[in-house]
Parts: sequence; structure tokens; C-alpha cells
Amino acid sequence: MLRKLFFPLLVVTFVLSAISHYLHWGAELEFAFAGIAILFAAGLLGKATESVAHYAGQRLGGFLNATFGNAAELIIAIFLIKEGLYDIVKASLTGAIIGNLLLVLGASALVGGLKFKEQKFNIHSAGQNASLMLLAVIALFIPAIFVKTEHISEHDTMTISIVVAAFLILAYIGWLIYSMITHKDLLEDHVDTKADHGEAAPWSKGLSVLLLVVATVMVAFISEWLVHTLDTFSSRFGLSELFVGAFVVAIVGNAAEHSAAIVLAMKNKMGAAVEIAVGSSLQIALFVAPVLVFISLLFGGEMNLIFTTIEIAAIGVAVLIATSISRDGSTTWFEGMLLLFVYLILGVSFYFV
Amino acid sequence: MLRKLFFPLLVVTFVLSAISHYLHWGAELEFAFAGIAILFAAGLLGKATESVAHYAGQRLGGFLNATFGNAAELIIAIFLIKEGLYDIVKASLTGAIIGNLLLVLGASALVGGLKFKEQKFNIHSAGQNASLMLLAVIALFIPAIFVKTEHISEHDTMTISIVVAAFLILAYIGWLIYSMITHKDLLEDHVDTKADHGEAAPWSKGLSVLLLVVATVMVAFISEWLVHTLDTFSSRFGLSELFVGAFVVAIVGNAAEHSAAIVLAMKNKMGAAVEIAVGSSLQIALFVAPVLVFISLLFGGEMNLIFTTIEIAAIGVAVLIATSISRDGSTTWFEGMLLLFVYLILGVSFYFV
Amino acid sequence: MLRKLFFPLLVVTFVLSAISHYLHWGAELEFAFAGIAILFAAGLLGKATESVAHYAGQRLGGFLNATFGNAAELIIAIFLIKEGLYDIVKASLTGAIIGNLLLVLGASALVGGLKFKEQKFNIHSAGQNASLMLLAVIALFIPAIFVKTEHISEHDTMTISIVVAAFLILAYIGWLIYSMITHKDLLEDHVDTKADHGEAAPWSKGLSVLLLVVATVMVAFISEWLVHTLDTFSSRFGLSELFVGAFVVAIVGNAAEHSAAIVLAMKNKMGAAVEIAVGSSLQIALFVAPVLVFISLLFGGEMNLIFTTIEIAAIGVAVLIATSISRDGSTTWFEGMLLLFVYLILGVSFYFV
Repeated sequence: MLRKLFFPLLVVTFVLSAISHYLHWGAELEFAFAGIAILFAAGLLGKATESVAHYAGQRLGGFLNATFGNAAELIIAIFLIKEGLYDIVKASLTGAIIGNLLLVLGASALVGGLKFKEQKFNIHSAGQNASLMLLAVIALFIPAIFVKTEHISEHDTMTISIVVAAFLILAYIGWLIYSMITHKDLLEDHVDTKADHGEAAPWSKGLSVLLLVVATVMVAFISEWLVHTLDTFSSRFGLSELFVGAFVVAIVGNAAEHSAAIVLAMKNKMGAAVEIAVGSSLQIALFVAPVLVFISLLFGGEMNLIFTTIEIAAIGVAVLIATSISRDGSTTWFEGMLLLFVYLILGVSFYFV
Repeated sequence: MLRKLFFPLLVVTFVLSAISHYLHWGAELEFAFAGIAILFAAGLLGKATESVAHYAGQRLGGFLNATFGNAAELIIAIFLIKEGLYDIVKASLTGAIIGNLLLVLGASALVGGLKFKEQKFNIHSAGQNASLMLLAVIALFIPAIFVKTEHISEHDTMTISIVVAAFLILAYIGWLIYSMITHKDLLEDHVDTKADHGEAAPWSKGLSVLLLVVATVMVAFISEWLVHTLDTFSSRFGLSELFVGAFVVAIVGNAAEHSAAIVLAMKNKMGAAVEIAVGSSLQIALFVAPVLVFISLLFGGEMNLIFTTIEIAAIGVAVLIATSISRDGSTTWFEGMLLLFVYLILGVSFYFV
Repeated sequence: MLRKLFFPLLVVTFVLSAISHYLHWGAELEFAFAGIAILFAAGLLGKATESVAHYAGQRLGGFLNATFGNAAELIIAIFLIKEGLYDIVKASLTGAIIGNLLLVLGASALVGGLKFKEQKFNIHSAGQNASLMLLAVIALFIPAIFVKTEHISEHDTMTISIVVAAFLILAYIGWLIYSMITHKDLLEDHVDTKADHGEAAPWSKGLSVLLLVVATVMVAFISEWLVHTLDTFSSRFGLSELFVGAFVVAIVGNAAEHSAAIVLAMKNKMGAAVEIAVGSSLQIALFVAPVLVFISLLFGGEMNLIFTTIEIAAIGVAVLIATSISRDGSTTWFEGMLLLFVYLILGVSFYFV
């Protein structure tokens, strides 16, 4: 039913969003339409990426999936950078990471755990992911604590950011080589479930590529419209830009992952759900965030990698509790509840900043 | 021998404490008598709770045990709140948590480990407890770091505290449901040892309830007398109120758990000893602390959940090392020694504040 | 080949270092010669210690090995303390700990992992080491956070440092008793590999003792020469003393361990390589650092144990990622790469302070 209505709804919401933007219907309506439209466009982008990946063969496909899985977030962030809204970019990256580790993983574990007593997944993969997430936290924490406690010039801060960004991208490339080539078999469940949530491609090769291009363009347009409403929207509702970036934008931009992971958990494919949640966080921390540092240079700006204390604290506790819970290779409804509570505590705290 | 003398000693110390209080014998004597009297009264309270729990049936009994296990601490804290001594309340909560995780667990592992080479316990339960303790640390850390680094009004700070307190109580209820109903079998050792340290009830049903009431009233009275001496006592001995709250009050209030856990460890029932130490910490962090926030409102005050930096640091390191040591489901004398060293390092540091 | 040239090179570099020092050839040359000479002298000191340990019997030998394994670092640090360069001492201790946990362990895991798919080692020993490293981090972190956030006089700070130093040395002695006497069998791999990298002693008993004395004297002389160049050297090259202490001195002083661990990893003896890297860090944190506090008192000075925020952060993240990676008792090339990246990120950050 929803499948049948997907394309009509995509077109209608896109058109409504466009009209409300160009006719200046006001921040509330523009924000609402853009927010709904980007849900559908991001969904199409995800499906089209998977479909193209399917035709590209397992290895290249895995790479495409892993690299463009967060294309929607990347595009939204680029438009924020173009406007010089670096703080909102970092807030939305923070929000995407904690949203995946706490909201997506927590909701999946809770909903799946209400149906199945204990849901198991590859323990080796969980340990690996924990170390990678730790690297990401360290790479954000170290420059921040140096800049906050020592006298480091703005120029040197940017240099440190660029070097750290380069190391993160190298670590990400290393991870792709490790998990897709040299140690693929050790992380079996990982690969298996990857195939699972990819399923068969619904479209022909040519159509897939066409839809990928169309979806990218749509996301790009809606992102620009959405970004323009943020300022008015947040002041109208008394919300800080930080809260809008970290919670509203992040939830909207990740809605596709959210629903996919929960559906998988309900089918007792918790390994695939963990893969989406943790894999998505890793992509954002190790690939999207550092790439944005370089993109900011292309736009003549200088977005460094220095996150605020509360952003690092939020990412740090999310990684801590998510790895503590997933390290044993199984989840229960109770662990899902704990993750959701941490997300809510963070949400309430950010709300009052 | 000591069992035979228990009731006479309870009465004598209670009477001495009462007389010294009403005749104003001076802070030193009043503190000493109240401190000794509360050891016996808290011991009776613990025994009576267990006995009532025994008659209430396994499920309700477990709930009673879990909820009123720290009744003595709760009553002491209520009298501190009545006097508006919020900082001492938080110090004593901090002291109770680190005292259980480091002193009780450490002494049990050391003493037990000197007799038995390696003492094993349910690894599943240990992992679960670790995640719960982590939630508690996060719930204290997040509001504190937000309040300390951002501009958050006192009113919003209290709102955040109330919300976080509510989530902690919900997590505690979830934990009871999880460990006593839905996943009871997974945590077998847990339940087993619970029964172990409960043993058979020594008193009839009616006597148990009567003793529970008597013990509660005695603890309540002695607590009030004790609280009144703290101010004079700490200034007389050049101790900060922080140190008195975190170490003196906490050790006195937890003496019953201390001795019970060590006795169990010496009988090679390390699972039960861990259960007491970690379970007690969890009760304080997830139940006593948040309940006190609501109780402060009843008294017309506003005790928020913002602990000081050094209190959070102390709780954080205690949780880190206790979970690192217990995560593998076994302890040795050396690990007990490490826990005690961390406790002593904290004690020395708090002493000089 | 290199073995044959070892003694001639040792003598030549020692003599060159001596001449450059007494004839004042300038900081660059003096630093370079002293740096190369100390590599050889430290190498001889290590070999001679192992050889003496061999003749002393397993138990006393293990103790000697464990206690004098970082004799070179200790001697360098003593000369720094004599000059009152406490900050460089702490920086070099920091550098030695992170160098062992990140550079030595990382390079070993990477190089070994390129040859062998997965390298396994004793999981029990890894867990034990993790708890000990955690104690070391806590022992540095707690006094620092108390001193930084509360009003603690310099006198009390020194008292706290002395007490903490005493506990660390007691923990170290406890560890020796635990790993060499009471729980030796549990940590088999540990003992096994210890023997492995000790191999047979190349020299007679008398010669071993003589060489130990000669090596100690050489290291002592070169250390003094080296320390005198640091000031000029660092200002000439625009490096902070912190960077020179934490990276240059630490790498030079640990070169022997570095090469030994990598060679062992290439022979698939990862357990022994981990033992060197982690064991060496533990020695520095639990033995060398606290002993230096007492040595500073002998010289009429007062070196406390309060490390800077960034030093504690560096040690903390190094311990976190090293224990996260080694906790499962196996390493791969990718994990080695992650450790090296964290080391490089720290290096870049320290460079810009």
C-alpha cells in the first residue's frame, strides 16, 4: 500500500515543498513540507544506492553502500556549510551519531526484544565496531581538549583538524579493506545481513542509475530549502539552533535508517539492525565529518573539527553505553530501553541549553 | 555469641544514644553513640526486611528486598534533606556508591581471594549490572556537564533533574521486571544467591512485620540525632562536611552490607557478595537518589541532581574499575586489593578538600 | 651482522657523544650523538639485565627483569629531576606510556598482522593488565581533578602525591606477587613468552654482572649529556619542551623495546610483544613514576604526581583504545593501524602546543 503510494507522495511533497519555498508561505509550512519531502527523497536515495550497488557486484557494491549510505546527511551538511552554519553542521553530525547509536539501536533492541527474548549477532564484529567508534571519539576529543586547555592559534587548530580528518578518512578506507577484503569471513554475520537488507534490486540497471541521480538532485534542492527555514523556525518555536541541528534535522535525515532497522529487528535480524545503526554512526564520524572539513575549504571557509564540550560528552556517553550493551553480541528489550533513556536524557538536556 | 547479644546491644546503644542526645553530652559522644546504635538498628532493619520478604513470596519478596535494602540510607538522607543539607546528602550518596563498589566489593574479593584462588559468578549478570551502572553515571554526568559549561537557569536545572530522576526510577522498575520476571532464568546465579543470603526467616510472620516497623522507627530517630551532630563533629575534627558525608556517614550506614558481603565471600559465595555490593550501588543510584529529589519537593525545598565534579569523577572511576574487574565473572585477591587502593586514593583526596 | 658490530658501535657512539659533549660541538651534534649512543647503551642494559635475571633463577630473575626493564628511562628521569625539569619528566613518562601502548603495540600488531591473519594471546592476562592500567590512569586522574577543581594547598598536593605514589608501588609489588607466585599458572602465556624473549643468556654469570654495571654507568653518563642539550635543541628546532619530552626522549629511551616487540610479532609471538608493550607501560606508571616522586625528595625538590590535563587525556585515551583492542586476546593489522593513528593524532596535537 505504502509502496504503491511512494512515488506519488514523493512527487506531491516535493512540489509542495518547492511551491511553499518560492512563494514564501512562512517558515513553519516551509519547514514542515521540506521535512516530509526529504523523508521520501532520502528514502529513494537509499533504495537507488542499494540498487546500483546490487548491479555493481558485491565488492564495489558494498563500497558504494558504505560510502553513499549517508548521502542525504552529507548533502544537507554541504548546504549548511555553504551558508557558513558550521555550528549547526557539527550539531547535526552529533545528532546523527547519537541518534543512530541510541534511538535507532535502542528502538530496534526494544521492539525486537518485546518479540524475541534475546537477539544475538556476530560478537567479533561488535568488538571491531567498538574499537572504531572509540577511535572516532578520541579523534574528536583530543583536538578539543588541546584547544580548550592550551593556547593554540586558530590557524594551528585548523591544521590539526585537517590532519585528524585525513587520519579518520584513512581509518575508514582501512576499515573497508579490512571488512570487505582481508577479514571478510571473520565478520560473516556482517556481510550476510548486509545482503539481507539489500534484498533484490527492484529496478533495472539503467533505471537505478537514473533514480540515483534524480534522488540526489531532489535531496539537494530540498536540503537548500530546509536550511533556509531553520533560522526562522528555531526562533519561532524558542528552540536553540543546537537543538534543531542535533535532534530535528538529525531525526529527519535518518528516518529511512530508523524504520529499516526496526523492521529488521522485528524479523529477528538484529545483526542487520546493529549493522545499520552502528555502521551509519561510523560512516558519519569517520567519513562524513572529515570530508566536510575538506569541503568547507572548497567553499573558501574553514570548518574545524573542534566540537563543543557537550557535543563530545554526548557522543562519548552514546558510544560508551552502546558498546557496553552490544559488546556481548546480544540485546534484550531492557537494554533497548536503557539506550532510549540515555537518548531522552540527552534530548532534555540539549533542549534547555 | 554475637547473635545472642544482638538485641541487648541494640537496646543499650539506642538508649545511650537517646540519653546523650537529650542531655547534650557533646558532639563527640553523641556522634559515637548514634554511630554505633545505627549499626545495630540498620542490621535489624535489614534482617526484618529479609524476613518479611520471605513470607511475601519470591516475587514480591524480591521486590521488597530490592526496594527497602537501603532503607537506612534513605531515612538518614531524608533527615539531612529536612535540614536543607543537600550537599551532604549528595556526598553521602556518592560515598554509599563508591563504598559499595570499592570497599565492600574490594574487601570481599580480597578476603575471599586469600582463601580461594579464583571466585566465579554469573557473567551475564555482571554485564547487565555494568550497563546499568553506566546509565547511572551518565544520568549524573550529562546534566552536570550541561549545567557547568552552558548557561542553564536554576529553574531549568531543577526541571532537568526531575526528568532525569523520573527516567532513573523507570529504569529501576524496568530492571526489577527484567531480572525478576522476563529474564529471571538468564540471571540464575543472581536469584540463587539472593535466596542464599536470605536463608530461612528466623521470626514468625507477625513478629517480622513488627520488627520491621520497630527497626524503621529506631533508624529514623537515630538518624535525626546523628544528623544534628555532624556539623559540630566535622568542625571539631577539622573534617570537611564532604568527607564526613562521603566516608563517615556512608561507612556507618552501609556497615550491615559490608559484613554480610565479606562473610559470603569467605564461604565462596562470591556471586551473592557481588550482588549485595553492586545491587546496593544500583539501588542508591537508580532509586534512592532520584526518590530524594522528589522528597525534597515535598519538604518545600529543591534538591537537584547536579553532583560536584569530584563526586562524579569518584563515582565514574569506581564504576569503571569495578566493571572492568567483575566483567569476566571472576575475582581474585589481587583485584580486591586494586579496588581497595582506589577507595583509599579517593579517601585521601577527599580528606584534603 | 648487526650483532657483530654491536660492541664496536656502542663504544664508538659513546666516545663520540663524550667528545661532542666536553668539546661543546653544539646542541644539534651533541643531541644526535647522545641519542644514538643511548640506543646502544640501553640495548646493552636490557640484554645484561635479562642475562643476570637468567642466572638469578626464574623467580628472582622475573623480578629483576620486571623492575629494571625500564632502567634507562629511570636514569634519564633522575638527571632531569636533578636539574629540576619536573615538567619534562612528566612529559617523558607520558610519552613512554603512550609510546608503548600505541606505537610499540600498534607497530607490532600492524607488522605482525600483515604476515598473520589473526594473532592470539592469553585473554586472562589481557584482562588483568587492563584493570592495572585503569588503576594507573585513576591514580593520575583523581589527584589532578581534585587539585584542578578544589582549593588544595601545594603542601597538601605533595602529601596526596606521596600517598598515591606509595599505593602505586604497593600495587606494583602486589602484581609481581600475583603474576609470579600466586596466579602464575593462570597467566601461562605471559610466563612462557617471558622466557621466549629472554632466550638463553649469551654471557657467563660474572660477565653479565660486569656488563650490567658498565651499561648502567654508560646510560647514566649519556643521560646527563643528553639532558643538557634538550633546552638548546628544543628552542633551536622550535619544539616545545613538552613535545621533546613526550615524543623525542620517549622514543629514544624505548627504542630497544620497540625493535624487540616488532621482531617477536613477526615471529607470531604476539603474546610476548604485548607483554613488552603493556608490561613496560605498567612498570612506568606503577613503579618508575611513583619512585621518581620519592627520588625528587632525596634531591631536596618536590615533584608531585599532578600531570597536566592533556597528559592525562593522552594516557587515558591510550589506555582505553589499547585495552579495547587487546581485551579479546587477539590483534589484526587493522587494529595495529588504529593504535598508530591515535599515536599520530596525539603527536600532531602535542606538536602545536
